[in-house]
Amino acid sequence: MSPKALAFDVFGTVVDWRSSITRELEHFGNAHGADEDWPAFADNWRGGYAPAMDRVRRGELPWTRIDDLHRGILVELLRAADIPSVSAEDIDDLNRAWHRLDPWPDSVAGLTRLKQRFVITTLSNGNISLLTNMAKRAGLPWDCVISAELFHHYKPDPEAYLGCADLLGVRASELMLVAAHPSDLRSAHGAGLMTAYVARPLEYGPDQPPHSVEDGEFDFTATDFLDLADQLGV
Amino acid sequence: MSPKALAFDVFGTVVDWRSSITRELEHFGNAHGADEDWPAFADNWRGGYAPAMDRVRRGELPWTRIDDLHRGILVELLRAADIPSVSAEDIDDLNRAWHRLDPWPDSVAGLTRLKQRFVITTLSNGNISLLTNMAKRAGLPWDCVISAELFHHYKPDPEAYLGCADLLGVRASELMLVAAHPSDLRSAHGAGLMTAYVARPLEYGPDQPPHSVEDGEFDFTATDFLDLADQLGV
Repeated sequence: MSPKALAFDVFGTVVDWRSSITRELEHFGNAHGADEDWPAFADNWRGGYAPAMDRVRRGELPWTRIDDLHRGILVELLRAADIPSVSAEDIDDLNRAWHRLDPWPDSVAGLTRLKQRFVITTLSNGNISLLTNMAKRAGLPWDCVISAELFHHYKPDPEAYLGCADLLGVRASELMLVAAHPSDLRSAHGAGLMTAYVARPLEYGPDQPPHSVEDGEFDFTATDFLDLADQLGV
Repeated sequence: MSPKALAFDVFGTVVDWRSSITRELEHFGNAHGADEDWPAFADNWRGGYAPAMDRVRRGELPWTRIDDLHRGILVELLRAADIPSVSAEDIDDLNRAWHRLDPWPDSVAGLTRLKQRFVITTLSNGNISLLTNMAKRAGLPWDCVISAELFHHYKPDPEAYLGCADLLGVRASELMLVAAHPSDLRSAHGAGLMTAYVARPLEYGPDQPPHSVEDGEFDFTATDFLDLADQLGV
């Protein structure tokens, strides 16, 4: 069984958000004379994202795009860190660091190979402008850009996985989610998608404990996108 | 005043639907022993599209994607032409000719240049899978694929133009519609977008009367995408 289209989780799966955000925070700290544990700040920024999305998913917040969730978390973290006199413009610019994330070393080459055989799209909780700007800067060769924003349902709501298949004109069973996160893949499987797990052991830095994955739990298990392309015979 | 992003009408502006559809119809006719005036058949197929969309826009039909509108028109035309025993599968395949349209000779090179400076997206009434498959086959280098399907509002409803700007994270005044159709451009202007008219004098074949366009009516008037890139200084 071969899929017709591949939908990629993006943060952590395609791009190395932690190194990119840490680098941007260091620049910001230098410019503002602030000295923090920037990798920990990056982890806290990322860490605020799932609870914020869950508030949207539970209906406690109206639909809010990730750019705005990210900004709200950032403002809280800057306040907690006691960094004074940061202009709204500087906060906006720093917040757009999420549009400027670098890909993992294999991402562009792997996607370019996979694109030869499959329709390749994002399926991310990041908003369309974030994903579009990111792809343009990093050279990610998507066939199209699909986001939870289009469905007003964040993953892991089934509407996001099924909406992606619907827009691509394929059955759920003909669409494969590629992700570094078992929970995302399990939800996609629950919605009827095929699944490919790609290990990204450095997503949370050098001390990240490995994800717990059972043998045969996913349709494919790969070490990176080039390995996935090999396994798919591209 | 320079735009931040360019949104392209697709049918007729980026791709030469009439030659492509006529060619596919000729193949179909040969395979089914049918001899028709295929350019006229193509014109009628295309001609059925605006009234069908208008029924959706007026609320007489629920939201229906172009693939399904195209198929309904095709079935009527085949019936009227008395072409017997065409399977549902053959109709589906012929209907997907709209996913296989060839670009105008300058389209890929022009878009590639424009992409260096601007975010470039589709803004078409064609559905996402149609636009995605077309771009993949023809090598159209979109930064993202945006369709009326995402808003459940066909152009010229303002929701389509404004929805595109919203997804791209730009103001309406920072987005420029590029189209070969003055009516589309006038509606975009009405919604606050910038406008670029690109002449496609062969869209409806060699005998097409020229569009009536007033001097200075649009922000840019170009002979093709390369000329537009020149004028935009790319």
